[in-house]
Amino acid sequence: MEFYSELRHLWQGYAKVSNGEQNRTTSLSSDEGMIDIATTGNMDERIIQDEIGTVQYSTDEIPGIGQYDDFHTIDWQRDIARDRMRHRYIVKKRSNSILDLVRGAHDAWSGWLCVLLVGLVTGMVAGIIDIGASWMSDLKYGLCPQAFWLNQEQCCWSFNETSVDDKGNCSQWMMWSELITNSRTGVGAYIISYMFFIAWALLFASLAAGLVRMFAPYACGSGIPEIKTILSGFIIRGYLGKWTLIIKSVGIMLSVSAGLSLGKEGPMVHIASCIGNILSYLFPKYGRNEAKKREILSAAAAAGVSVAFGAPIGGVLFSLEEVSYYFPLKTLWRSFFCALVAAFVLRSINPFGNEHSVLFYVEYNKPWVFIELVPFVGLGIIGGAIATVFIKANIWWCRYRKTSRLGQYPVTEVLVVTAITAVIAYPNPFTRMSTSQLIYLLFSQCGVSAADGLCNYDNSPDDPGVYTAVWLLVLALLFKLITTIFTFGMKVPCGLFIPSLCLGGIVGRIVGIGMQQLAVAYPHIFIFATECASGEDCITPGLYAMVGAAAVLGGVTRMTVSLVVIMFELTGGVRYIVPLMAAAMASKWVGDALGKQGIYDAHINLNGYPFLDSKEEFAHTSLAADVMQPKRNEPLSVLTQDSMTVEDVTQLLKETEHNGFPVVVSRESQYLVGFVLRRDLSLAIENARRTVEGVQTDSLVLFSSNPSQPLGPGSSPPLKLKKILDMAPITITDQTPMETVVDMFRKLGLRQTLVTHHGRLLGVITKKDVLRYIKQIDNEDPNSVLFN
Amino acid sequence: MEFYSELRHLWQGYAKVSNGEQNRTTSLSSDEGMIDIATTGNMDERIIQDEIGTVQYSTDEIPGIGQYDDFHTIDWQRDIARDRMRHRYIVKKRSNSILDLVRGAHDAWSGWLCVLLVGLVTGMVAGIIDIGASWMSDLKYGLCPQAFWLNQEQCCWSFNETSVDDKGNCSQWMMWSELITNSRTGVGAYIISYMFFIAWALLFASLAAGLVRMFAPYACGSGIPEIKTILSGFIIRGYLGKWTLIIKSVGIMLSVSAGLSLGKEGPMVHIASCIGNILSYLFPKYGRNEAKKREILSAAAAAGVSVAFGAPIGGVLFSLEEVSYYFPLKTLWRSFFCALVAAFVLRSINPFGNEHSVLFYVEYNKPWVFIELVPFVGLGIIGGAIATVFIKANIWWCRYRKTSRLGQYPVTEVLVVTAITAVIAYPNPFTRMSTSQLIYLLFSQCGVSAADGLCNYDNSPDDPGVYTAVWLLVLALLFKLITTIFTFGMKVPCGLFIPSLCLGGIVGRIVGIGMQQLAVAYPHIFIFATECASGEDCITPGLYAMVGAAAVLGGVTRMTVSLVVIMFELTGGVRYIVPLMAAAMASKWVGDALGKQGIYDAHINLNGYPFLDSKEEFAHTSLAADVMQPKRNEPLSVLTQDSMTVEDVTQLLKETEHNGFPVVVSRESQYLVGFVLRRDLSLAIENARRTVEGVQTDSLVLFSSNPSQPLGPGSSPPLKLKKILDMAPITITDQTPMETVVDMFRKLGLRQTLVTHHGRLLGVITKKDVLRYIKQIDNEDPNSVLFN
Repeated sequence: MEFYSELRHLWQGYAKVSNGEQNRTTSLSSDEGMIDIATTGNMDERIIQDEIGTVQYSTDEIPGIGQYDDFHTIDWQRDIARDRMRHRYIVKKRSNSILDLVRGAHDAWSGWLCVLLVGLVTGMVAGIIDIGASWMSDLKYGLCPQAFWLNQEQCCWSFNETSVDDKGNCSQWMMWSELITNSRTGVGAYIISYMFFIAWALLFASLAAGLVRMFAPYACGSGIPEIKTILSGFIIRGYLGKWTLIIKSVGIMLSVSAGLSLGKEGPMVHIASCIGNILSYLFPKYGRNEAKKREILSAAAAAGVSVAFGAPIGGVLFSLEEVSYYFPLKTLWRSFFCALVAAFVLRSINPFGNEHSVLFYVEYNKPWVFIELVPFVGLGIIGGAIATVFIKANIWWCRYRKTSRLGQYPVTEVLVVTAITAVIAYPNPFTRMSTSQLIYLLFSQCGVSAADGLCNYDNSPDDPGVYTAVWLLVLALLFKLITTIFTFGMKVPCGLFIPSLCLGGIVGRIVGIGMQQLAVAYPHIFIFATECASGEDCITPGLYAMVGAAAVLGGVTRMTVSLVVIMFELTGGVRYIVPLMAAAMASKWVGDALGKQGIYDAHINLNGYPFLDSKEEFAHTSLAADVMQPKRNEPLSVLTQDSMTVEDVTQLLKETEHNGFPVVVSRESQYLVGFVLRRDLSLAIENARRTVEGVQTDSLVLFSSNPSQPLGPGSSPPLKLKKILDMAPITITDQTPMETVVDMFRKLGLRQTLVTHHGRLLGVITKKDVLRYIKQIDNEDPNSVLFN
Repeated sequence: MEFYSELRHLWQGYAKVSNGEQNRTTSLSSDEGMIDIATTGNMDERIIQDEIGTVQYSTDEIPGIGQYDDFHTIDWQRDIARDRMRHRYIVKKRSNSILDLVRGAHDAWSGWLCVLLVGLVTGMVAGIIDIGASWMSDLKYGLCPQAFWLNQEQCCWSFNETSVDDKGNCSQWMMWSELITNSRTGVGAYIISYMFFIAWALLFASLAAGLVRMFAPYACGSGIPEIKTILSGFIIRGYLGKWTLIIKSVGIMLSVSAGLSLGKEGPMVHIASCIGNILSYLFPKYGRNEAKKREILSAAAAAGVSVAFGAPIGGVLFSLEEVSYYFPLKTLWRSFFCALVAAFVLRSINPFGNEHSVLFYVEYNKPWVFIELVPFVGLGIIGGAIATVFIKANIWWCRYRKTSRLGQYPVTEVLVVTAITAVIAYPNPFTRMSTSQLIYLLFSQCGVSAADGLCNYDNSPDDPGVYTAVWLLVLALLFKLITTIFTFGMKVPCGLFIPSLCLGGIVGRIVGIGMQQLAVAYPHIFIFATECASGEDCITPGLYAMVGAAAVLGGVTRMTVSLVVIMFELTGGVRYIVPLMAAAMASKWVGDALGKQGIYDAHINLNGYPFLDSKEEFAHTSLAADVMQPKRNEPLSVLTQDSMTVEDVTQLLKETEHNGFPVVVSRESQYLVGFVLRRDLSLAIENARRTVEGVQTDSLVLFSSNPSQPLGPGSSPPLKLKKILDMAPITITDQTPMETVVDMFRKLGLRQTLVTHHGRLLGVITKKDVLRYIKQIDNEDPNSVLFN
């Protein structure tokens, strides 16, 4: 009881409310003869919890109040208020006993502890995925018969093989053709390898698609659009659950190994967010409060990028720039900590044996010259254009999939795409290898790793090796572009970072080779004169590949700062900030000019999620009165503070589908008193009917402390619901420009706002109304906004 | 006229306001017989401007409306609304003619153009300051007689001197003792050098202090606390003006050269902000709108740090984490661009001849081992403690200066501190050199630059050189700590980054030397066993210095992410993120535990600026009703919409000092209609009296479209002021928890909010009320909040 009464005191009374003036309410009162819903409910359970000393904490008396339905928008202000109340309770109790002090300390540190755990687990899971995917990818080519659990590289290493050829083969590692025909070369071996390549790819892909379809439909795709939506304050139950985590982790290994044109970096963000969500339930402060949970999820997203690229700072900036909606400084610090722990764990696991967290880490130190900024900006423009083509084509295809019968055969689609990808990919050495390896190759300098035809030319002007390399690259570019368009959005886990980097890397490498050949052919023209005079290699095609990769990725995702930081954490050199930055800005500008949305926003739009973009400016001349519901001449569904019966309220709940109802003084004078959520109201009435005696259909429902008119002697006792009334709803006047309204929705995280004129209630604006209105004035279909 | 009517249409009418319901207003009407203030004013000027085709733009009819008084808080919502109106006007006009199209394009790009210019100018100014300060610093030691404009290094270089000794001396460079006595060594030469050293220091310091005192009092200090306050929405006229820019630029060169314990990095942020402010006036979109101007200032602050440390990304994060208040993504991108341009320009100028923008750039590549994290975290803890000591002592001294007679003799104070600093600094080689050089030395590895006693020991266990080095470092630490406490806050330009880095660097180096000696003495104990077995140097004292520097700077400023990024942009290695991060977090935690504010927040507090910190959480159980003005039983100053005369209003303006007045329906029914700013009201009445005939003291002041009661036949025509009425003030209910109110103030940038109960006006909460209330519940003096 002590617990409860304290809580009630904190929540309702504040003990300070004045009673001197008539126009202020007195909110604490306990009249006899009235049933106060707040004192009923599952109080016994609560007391037991308190006595046995669990840290378990429940803020609300009526079960379910304070939670949200699936596919609904959360109310940030309300959740944060709940958390503050909880916090205050703990701080107040802290001086009572040592145990409470420990609890208080635990509460204060639980945020840091939680992100520490998230970082540790994310790092470990990422390590497992990296190792697993690398092993399965190599399984397509062959096996280590003496130790089948090793991948090609480990196999050759662990038996101290020294005779490793340029494709990484050694005698311990058996290619499938070797196991069957004892031959490595020749047409027969080629065909056998080809067949095995396709067969494994199909097996992996069907497993991935099947697992996703059977166990966790939410595990498909990259997950970033949904995580953006969830972080903006939306509920999708199960999207970050344990099944999604398990299936996505297994599925991404499989789909990467299947050789599809996709990456595991985007899904890693989703996996990390799942880990964040699951671990947050260990800390009721976060697990039971949707707004607070999102702080952990922001940090987890940072950890996801951190392990995906070995870039902790880049991860934090990615979370800030691309994913998160609310990012206070506290979250910044925790995200940084979380990202760092995750990166550190992954690096300790050392999945690639190169002391780095990614396969394509390249250490770079070659200088660049000022004049090269011209091709770098050019790469930015090309990258922006390619990205736009990709986005538009991908969205077109995804829309087609959604609306046609194709959507009914997700596994078949995956198998067909996998088969085509595998068949076409094998002959070209650049597409046969995994995309990460290709990126590594593209970023590398010739001479250091002169493998696979990319450097099979000397710098004499007429070397045919150049043409071969460029042609293979052009083919690889077309192949990757087309397959990625069809792959992204399929019902397997699939990320977009790696294919984008790869596309850009190929374009950049081609431009780089062109520049290099130009410098070789005309070493004395003015642009090269000062820099290339020494006869040295003055153009590094690998750097162009890196810049190109940044450009395409920037165009696709519209990242800028985070992109540059990720790229330079990948390459470990601050020297290339200017080129990377120039390309990223050019790409972003070109992308914004050609089509306003990045891929994630386009997918959010396609799926109709209620995401209020904080980047776009609202530039229309509307007032709140134009947007609010109800429209002119329609009645507004309201509750009155002390004149409706239980039946009236039940009727209203039946007749309307609103998620909440404003409470006004009376039908005649519609001055606003507060706001009640539909969910809370129906739960409270149900609960009262079940547990409180005397509540009948003709009982008055009271949202005020006392009824304005005295009750008749024979009337049934009124039902007091003041407890569930939000007495501080956010209100605006009907003359408020919509820009301000949108700004308030974004910054305060509102679910709805009430519109008044001279104090009188006129209507309600919900987030959905705002989104629909924006669609409408943008000449899009307002009904494409699907959820509440 | 067309301009005006369009504008009015956009602003007021929106043409869509409904007229079907009685409780909605019709806002567009032009009745005869009434004087509408909106149609008067300087309309002619406006039309002329429009016809001659200037880009000049003025949003308001009455001169001065929309501007702010000095030391007042701005209203972000209002300014942003003004900008949107302006934007809409330009977009609408764009289709009219080619010229308008060009204007539209110019407007769209002016943000980028402005930050480009800011970046360019900041880079150049930083280059000039770097070169000037380095020349003047060397002037204390000697002169290049053949080319007096060269500093020591350039002097030796430009005459192809090869015989440069370890102090950088060469035969072309004449020390003062050499110029006078032809001798470099000996007691006489030492004394002469000493005297010259002190004399120059006093000269520079007196010039710096004198210039600041005479021409630009705002040029003193680091400027970051004030810039934080300005960016949070406060007006300090002249703080970012041209005189401040000039004097601060010259003054910082002088005060750095005077050998005071201060740096030019903080003032560089102030200088960049001045440049941002001045250049924003080239673009009326920014120059004439305080809220928009702050976007440019945020970018300029990023450029300031970017040139100060050659760290563009660190600069952006500094602006985000430490300085800025509102930092939307658009500002992030522009800040990044601005910081990059500035860094690029400075690097092209190459002021230090080392291809980097800072003197103490050190390229690092030595690995660190896991066990070293223990001393790194230890350094973080020590750093946090030193920082707390520094902050508390410095604030105590600054408060003493403010309250005692000391404050009246700023120049004397500077001269005394300079004299003491110079006298004590000269004998110790570590303190004699400039602080930047000392930092460079501390960060360096032995062997690479084995100068000045820091590496004069081999690694045999009993080398006395170690003790000498450590003793000199301890003395330098004490000296720097004490002088910096007294220096920061003096009336010369002075920054805090360099002294903090230096303090931390010394501590770190001492710990590093200790660890090194430990490893040398006990190479086989378990902690060193695996790593140091090879006999190599396994401990790098320079790395410890770097980590220590980060720890103290982190403790002083409470930066985390930006600090780590700055440090790793300084050293060009991603390898040290984990150590730096560990130290920075430890330091921040220790600092937060020992004293809650960083140095900048402490100085904001000391000066009583109205800064509503967005980092601190408001954790008290108050309601809006507890904070609002007026308190119980006091009357609330309101205007009525249609029943007050010009005289009544003038009387109210005379009697009260509020910055704005709520407008209500009538005295009897105080339902809120809108809000009028004092400044606008008095300007409008003054303007009407001057320009409009028929306005008399008994004219009704109308804030509605029509008076509710018809005017008598003989009465003077009413004065319509609906134009200046804000019909969409932000309102809250009296039951709103103060946390929510504070959140709204922070996130929406409010100046005041109106408190209602059931639609009726109860009172007003201003930003100052909130700040005072926070002070009060924190048991501090609420009257220390000084401005509005």
